Amino acid sequence: DIGLLVCQQGAQAAAVFTTNKIVSAAVDVCRANVKSRKIKAVVVNSGIANACTGKKGLKNAEQMCKNTAGAVGTNAENVLVASTGVIGRQLEMGKILPGIESAHKALSDSAQAGLNFAKAIMTTDTKPKQAVTSVKIGKSSVTIAGAVKGAGMIGPNMATTLCFLTTDADISKPLLKRALAEAIGQSLNRLTVDGHQSTNDTAIILASAQAGNTPIRKADRNYNKFAKALGLLCQDLTRQMALDAEGATRMFKVVVKGAASNAQAHKAARAVADYPLVKCAINGGDPNWGRIICAVGSCSVKFNPAKLSCKLGPVTVFRNGSPVKFDHKKAAAIVASKEHTITIDLGVGKGNDFCFGCDMSKEYVEINADYHT
Amino acid sequence: DIGLLVCQQGAQAAAVFTTNKIVSAAVDVCRANVKSRKIKAVVVNSGIANACTGKKGLKNAEQMCKNTAGAVGTNAENVLVASTGVIGRQLEMGKILPGIESAHKALSDSAQAGLNFAKAIMTTDTKPKQAVTSVKIGKSSVTIAGAVKGAGMIGPNMATTLCFLTTDADISKPLLKRALAEAIGQSLNRLTVDGHQSTNDTAIILASAQAGNTPIRKADRNYNKFAKALGLLCQDLTRQMALDAEGATRMFKVVVKGAASNAQAHKAARAVADYPLVKCAINGGDPNWGRIICAVGSCSVKFNPAKLSCKLGPVTVFRNGSPVKFDHKKAAAIVASKEHTITIDLGVGKGNDFCFGCDMSKEYVEINADYHT
Repeated sequence: DIGLLVCQQGAQAAAVFTTNKIVSAAVDVCRANVKSRKIKAVVVNSGIANACTGKKGLKNAEQMCKNTAGAVGTNAENVLVASTGVIGRQLEMGKILPGIESAHKALSDSAQAGLNFAKAIMTTDTKPKQAVTSVKIGKSSVTIAGAVKGAGMIGPNMATTLCFLTTDADISKPLLKRALAEAIGQSLNRLTVDGHQSTNDTAIILASAQAGNTPIRKADRNYNKFAKALGLLCQDLTRQMALDAEGATRMFKVVVKGAASNAQAHKAARAVADYPLVKCAINGGDPNWGRIICAVGSCSVKFNPAKLSCKLGPVTVFRNGSPVKFDHKKAAAIVASKEHTITIDLGVGKGNDFCFGCDMSKEYVEINADYHT
Repeated sequence: DIGLLVCQQGAQAAAVFTTNKIVSAAVDVCRANVKSRKIKAVVVNSGIANACTGKKGLKNAEQMCKNTAGAVGTNAENVLVASTGVIGRQLEMGKILPGIESAHKALSDSAQAGLNFAKAIMTTDTKPKQAVTSVKIGKSSVTIAGAVKGAGMIGPNMATTLCFLTTDADISKPLLKRALAEAIGQSLNRLTVDGHQSTNDTAIILASAQAGNTPIRKADRNYNKFAKALGLLCQDLTRQMALDAEGATRMFKVVVKGAASNAQAHKAARAVADYPLVKCAINGGDPNWGRIICAVGSCSVKFNPAKLSCKLGPVTVFRNGSPVKFDHKKAAAIVASKEHTITIDLGVGKGNDFCFGCDMSKEYVEINADYHT
């Protein structure tokens, strides 16, 4: 339940955090330390969130950095920290500190070590979630790798998500920050499992500059290549998360177009993706488009009732405000598939946006009724 | 699946409806007809919502009024209509119209007839929900009775709720309207089951003026007595609804105080009551206050982190931004009881409000995954 990432030569780092107003002590400490120009380690614990834990919690988060710094041979402010688990309980430092020691001794650059890290950060996740990609920048191949955890308490803008990304790219801190924000904005920040953000959500990227690539110092073609590769990697991790969400059996993407603005499109997409009755219908493999339209109608976005339309995959089920005869069997098969797209046209403008969601199953309730404090 | 209320002498009527922008044809027709000064009947069908059904749906709703008017001996505009059930399917008029005939033949003022009406309007409800009360207005006893249905798709501001109230009070139309709006505002509009409003929510009250009471013509003491009795009756019906919500085993009330405004208090109360993780924890009998605080933190209301406090029943679990040692067994017993109150103090102002909610169980998912289109 302790994960440790080490970059002996020091790395540029960037991070994005939860927008919940109540944050874990780990987020407070991480927000401060990410400003350092030489991040040498990231330490993570799972099991206890270290949120709503007052001054003692803050001290404990700082102690985690201190002990990690001691093991790695650097100062505490060059260490990032993240926690995930139950809110309101203090970390058991008698277990955490020896855990950091053991994790440091087990450090390795093997694939197995990467997998172990992905496993260490799991809570109610059922499987480790990792991805790796590479992209040519100038004459060098740059690698980007990531591990992610997150299963419930996932609203757009992350929730109990922890996401750790590493790359050997040589890239400036401001551009690294920008690429991360763009990538997360189109992936983790577009996923909702139960509509709420946790106190701990954190996505961190470390860039070690070991690839020997043409240094990325401005938003040019090389930057775009890097940013695109990072974006696709984050979408891959997001898909893995949606399909491993608590009790989830399938995922879906809600695309809203024809909105008065992109923000309105996002609001509608999220209302549909968050609506328990839509999520339950998808769990039952039921093309229950009435619940989709109902969610759109109740989320206070502007639409034209005479132009409102909806498609399940390629199948139009509602057009210009009226139901359409459709092949029920075909639509049911689409809804029952591993991943499908719901497209809604609000018929009033050019705004568009999307949101990822997953179905809601009996297991979701089981997990969250039994996950005791 | 057909319910019929008849008031041969004609009644004053008032109604409140869903605020969903997409409404059932029944709501459209009912909105127009409620302006009539002599409502003689209310006809209700359950099974099909008659929402998203275009012009044909509108014709069908009008036909229901016409046939009811024919049976009762009045004009169609003196009949109110309500529907509940699956969205997007046309009413089977071949069944509905003979159903109205049969219901008319079976009319009676017996208690059994009242129960039959409460049963006729059920969809996924497991039991009929009725209440009756009386209040002295001048020298006469005035009776108020109500029947309600609603089990899922219940956001504050009603949702798949249908609520039919009758009274023999002599009261003016404007005051009847005002009393209804006040009563629903503090009851049905403060209940959330899954946070969304349906296309069909309707609450109707008919006042026959048969009690011989001092006519209620202004907002005086008699009006207040009537309004209070109606309010308590609606709260009783709301409690019955919460406890019979889809799969619900218990209900709770979220009271928020110390908010910057009443509206902010309402927003926070609703965020907590709607949060699936809070609902699942309550289903598991778990005093998981961390999820409550997390919901408050993520709903963008103003609070003072150093003063934020939370109680489960009388047990303080979080005070001034920090966890408090509490009797876990006692708190668990409170959460596992049929009905409990969660109190949250935001520590910034004098705004307060409340919201009713219910737990989320595996049965909720089962019902809504299996309720096929």
